[in-house]
Amino acid sequence: MRKIILLIKCKDTQGLVFKVSSVLYKYGLNIEQNSEFVDKSSGMFFMRTEISGLDSMESTAFMESKQQDSINPNKIDSNITESITLDSNKLLKEIESALNNNAQISIKTQDKKSIIILATKENHCLGDLLIRHSSGELNAKILCVISNHNVLQSLVKKFDIPYYFIDSNGISREKHEKEILKICKNFSADFLVLAKYMRVLSPSFVARFKDKIINIHHSFLPAFIGANPYKQAYERGVKIIGATAHFVSDELDCGPIICQDVAQINHSYTWQDMQKAGRDIEKIVLARALNLALEDRIFLNGNKTIVF
Amino acid sequence: MRKIILLIKCKDTQGLVFKVSSVLYKYGLNIEQNSEFVDKSSGMFFMRTEISGLDSMESTAFMESKQQDSINPNKIDSNITESITLDSNKLLKEIESALNNNAQISIKTQDKKSIIILATKENHCLGDLLIRHSSGELNAKILCVISNHNVLQSLVKKFDIPYYFIDSNGISREKHEKEILKICKNFSADFLVLAKYMRVLSPSFVARFKDKIINIHHSFLPAFIGANPYKQAYERGVKIIGATAHFVSDELDCGPIICQDVAQINHSYTWQDMQKAGRDIEKIVLARALNLALEDRIFLNGNKTIVF
Amino acid sequence: MRKIILLIKCKDTQGLVFKVSSVLYKYGLNIEQNSEFVDKSSGMFFMRTEISGLDSMESTAFMESKQQDSINPNKIDSNITESITLDSNKLLKEIESALNNNAQISIKTQDKKSIIILATKENHCLGDLLIRHSSGELNAKILCVISNHNVLQSLVKKFDIPYYFIDSNGISREKHEKEILKICKNFSADFLVLAKYMRVLSPSFVARFKDKIINIHHSFLPAFIGANPYKQAYERGVKIIGATAHFVSDELDCGPIICQDVAQINHSYTWQDMQKAGRDIEKIVLARALNLALEDRIFLNGNKTIVF
Amino acid sequence: MRKIILLIKCKDTQGLVFKVSSVLYKYGLNIEQNSEFVDKSSGMFFMRTEISGLDSMESTAFMESKQQDSINPNKIDSNITESITLDSNKLLKEIESALNNNAQISIKTQDKKSIIILATKENHCLGDLLIRHSSGELNAKILCVISNHNVLQSLVKKFDIPYYFIDSNGISREKHEKEILKICKNFSADFLVLAKYMRVLSPSFVARFKDKIINIHHSFLPAFIGANPYKQAYERGVKIIGATAHFVSDELDCGPIICQDVAQINHSYTWQDMQKAGRDIEKIVLARALNLALEDRIFLNGNKTIVF
Repeated sequence: MRKIILLIKCKDTQGLVFKVSSVLYKYGLNIEQNSEFVDKSSGMFFMRTEISGLDSMESTAFMESKQQDSINPNKIDSNITESITLDSNKLLKEIESALNNNAQISIKTQDKKSIIILATKENHCLGDLLIRHSSGELNAKILCVISNHNVLQSLVKKFDIPYYFIDSNGISREKHEKEILKICKNFSADFLVLAKYMRVLSPSFVARFKDKIINIHHSFLPAFIGANPYKQAYERGVKIIGATAHFVSDELDCGPIICQDVAQINHSYTWQDMQKAGRDIEKIVLARALNLALEDRIFLNGNKTIVF
Repeated sequence: MRKIILLIKCKDTQGLVFKVSSVLYKYGLNIEQNSEFVDKSSGMFFMRTEISGLDSMESTAFMESKQQDSINPNKIDSNITESITLDSNKLLKEIESALNNNAQISIKTQDKKSIIILATKENHCLGDLLIRHSSGELNAKILCVISNHNVLQSLVKKFDIPYYFIDSNGISREKHEKEILKICKNFSADFLVLAKYMRVLSPSFVARFKDKIINIHHSFLPAFIGANPYKQAYERGVKIIGATAHFVSDELDCGPIICQDVAQINHSYTWQDMQKAGRDIEKIVLARALNLALEDRIFLNGNKTIVF
Repeated sequence: MRKIILLIKCKDTQGLVFKVSSVLYKYGLNIEQNSEFVDKSSGMFFMRTEISGLDSMESTAFMESKQQDSINPNKIDSNITESITLDSNKLLKEIESALNNNAQISIKTQDKKSIIILATKENHCLGDLLIRHSSGELNAKILCVISNHNVLQSLVKKFDIPYYFIDSNGISREKHEKEILKICKNFSADFLVLAKYMRVLSPSFVARFKDKIINIHHSFLPAFIGANPYKQAYERGVKIIGATAHFVSDELDCGPIICQDVAQINHSYTWQDMQKAGRDIEKIVLARALNLALEDRIFLNGNKTIVF
Repeated sequence: MRKIILLIKCKDTQGLVFKVSSVLYKYGLNIEQNSEFVDKSSGMFFMRTEISGLDSMESTAFMESKQQDSINPNKIDSNITESITLDSNKLLKEIESALNNNAQISIKTQDKKSIIILATKENHCLGDLLIRHSSGELNAKILCVISNHNVLQSLVKKFDIPYYFIDSNGISREKHEKEILKICKNFSADFLVLAKYMRVLSPSFVARFKDKIINIHHSFLPAFIGANPYKQAYERGVKIIGATAHFVSDELDCGPIICQDVAQINHSYTWQDMQKAGRDIEKIVLARALNLALEDRIFLNGNKTIVF
């Protein structure tokens, strides 16, 4: 059965769940899964609801358009011609009118989202996504891969995915990013995934894809911000290494964290050993974060994330 | 502010969230935290809601008793004499009448629960609970400790907690359990905690404390059921050991699992080394499970648990 | 600098380290890394030593052949045109004569080993190995992939690796394995890797590749032996799932365990969700086990492994 | 059988293992466990060997003194009334003469070590050590507990361990530490254990117990150095929290790390929830680090540790 996902973010007040569930009940929709969270410090309310029953909703909605004033919402007319998209909009509007003005409400269908991957030279994160993509496990279409080096071309080509090599050598960051931007404009991606893209993006680039760029950083942030975190970890003599997937913000490696994982190491690890061991964490954590994004499970809450 | 916890378990039908939230909204109660789950295979609905605003509820409830038919539920009378307990009951009844007949509904206050601990010789799980108890971290009162050996007496006595030594030597299981039961009857415990109590309880004993006995098993269940799981683990050559907290059922080590954790080991571990390393997992997992039970976060779903 | 790996397995007696290190010292070889273990229960001694300095060994050996002519069996011919392989043999013989007769001694060079992968339909373990292979991260040559289904062909072909589809439909296990064996004979593989190969191998097939077949089982063995372990895990209501890499023996899922890992799950996971989450553990654990085998880090000790 | 532990740290040169094992072999000693590590970056060699057979060593040494009279510096006196301690010294000297001058060599018996615990107000780390102490699991004698507050007195007194309350209020750090030092001088502790001692120690205090002070820091260092790391972790929105046991050096929270562990958290955790969840990691990590120290398993390597 067709499912839609309802996302609500607003100031917390009394009766939010009641108001939303009233609308859903009125249209005979089922709540399949429901997650709520109130952040006490910001006073914000977050809600993610998986809803089924859209088919019955259509008829209901149609009926309603004619009998707006009627008491019984369950009478169903026979002419069902309206598209599903229209009904989502109607549902959206009903919930908007049930809540206050400043609520951020959106309805997501389960249509496949699309992503652009940026990479540099390492193939483990990119390769992992390509394999997931090729089996259909990744619930997204990879539109293209952009790289500032050419080493990954042959890998990407195997999977019949467009590959763009934008050399960063000898040109300014602005010019380089302009070239990348040109490609991005040709596609309409839901997310930009930095699969070990080893260049810092400018604030103006980041601003164009606000909350849409997911990066994997090869350390347990906020430890070891910046270049070669494994070398930093080696120098410090830590006994655990990690990887962090986060949204990219203006400040380097400081964006909202989506998920993290770690692995035990010991004194016998050189920083190259750490790097090798770290690859397995990096690719798993990046894929996990991307899946959460693709399933509309992440809310931004200031510089943090709510992950349902 | 005083919080109560509303627990609902019933057949899943449309509008459950709406119906419950209607009642809460009517009484001006706040949903502080809300967790729901529908088990598709059993068709059961589970809901745990932390509610605040009981004070305003009292007045509302009072008003309501006089103006049952009135439309506006927010008018508040000034005579507030009813106890909180009464209001919880009223709330319970309202929700009962909003839902179908077979719903299991309960309202829990945040009053400290009480436990009886059964142990044998090992002190790590018992000691961990005693330390948590002594600092007030454990949200429960330890009523007494019962053991079939006498080695833990001096430890328990340090903490001024009654200790009962019921020797199992030379008497039948029935007689031994009868003695334990006698002590249990003197206290009124919410849970019996088996902190490495190394005897199997009879079905009739278990039946008297249905879903109220929490055990820690020193393996990653269902691997290594029965005696000396570390020796079994050693013989099998596993690379990870674990511990499992579960409710006790009639079948040995097969009750509903509450939580589990593991630790990496290697070939150099004897089974005694595993046992030593395992102690740290055992005590943490048992305390974690007990905390979940004390916070009313566990639903039973057949032979499984829902943990919110 | 060229490194070799010395592996010794024998009955534990006094002076083993001394005797081995004497030989190494005599030839001016460096111990880069050294791991030893004595299994008290079996009385067996295990030693893995990474040695460098093979070049200087040649000359040292020469010198010595003149000076210590009569003393021992180390007399070395003067024509220093012998290959390094020959020196390894000589080293092997010296160590053999220094230790008792029943010692199992072998010297491994760091030459790339070769593997044959068997798979069925799932692409995550196979794909992971292909990506590691294509970047050179996997220290092995994948000779070919054999499958009893045809779904993975297009993936394997992308990487220019021979793919053999041996349909198991309508033929006996014996006949099917005979076909597989025929292919295996064309190649000379160090290890057979079962990357989610979903058929049980017959004892006679296993016997032909004794201690050379590495399997990934999708559960935390010994829990959930046999078919559909995720369904078994779901039915049991565990809170942690796992994967186990092991050598294949005659008894199903009971061979020596190489490594294991786990992931936390909760009540909301269907068995399909567990399966999906499990894939990430499976592929990482299989690759980790394979790497250990490729680096000659695994000793067999009865039905257990020593992993250095 | 009596075991001793031989610890060697020196510049790496050829033949170290041979030279050490020659001495052990000569005296008929068994190597029960042997760990070696060469740090390529510093060129240092580390070796930890568990040795048994000390009794037979005495006689062997005697025998040899007659037979090999003239050959070497191992001439041993005939009066076999020497204590085992003397033999350890002799062994030490033999190994010293076998190795170069700058080698740091020590021989440790398995005698119980002794510790002084410093704490402030929290009881979980202290309590955990007291419980381990009371069952004999902790291989150390707790000489006394020193605190800058008085809240833990009643807990410590239960276990009949001297408790010293040294109020830090209204006095200078120097004066406060002087008082602590006075107590420490009355005892002779192998290690000072900071079980959530919430004051920074001065360099001069640290210098007096060089490499002998073990601290538990309630974060995954080097993330969140300094005050209230859980609040820092909350503000940053991490998804994993951790704890770090380390030797105390002059720079705050920057000493050599012994071990670390982590726990998954999520957006619903307040920093107080993190603090509560963190307590379980803190106490386990501190106890683990202390055990490693008590078993002489830690070498210092600059600002890092080698943990065998």
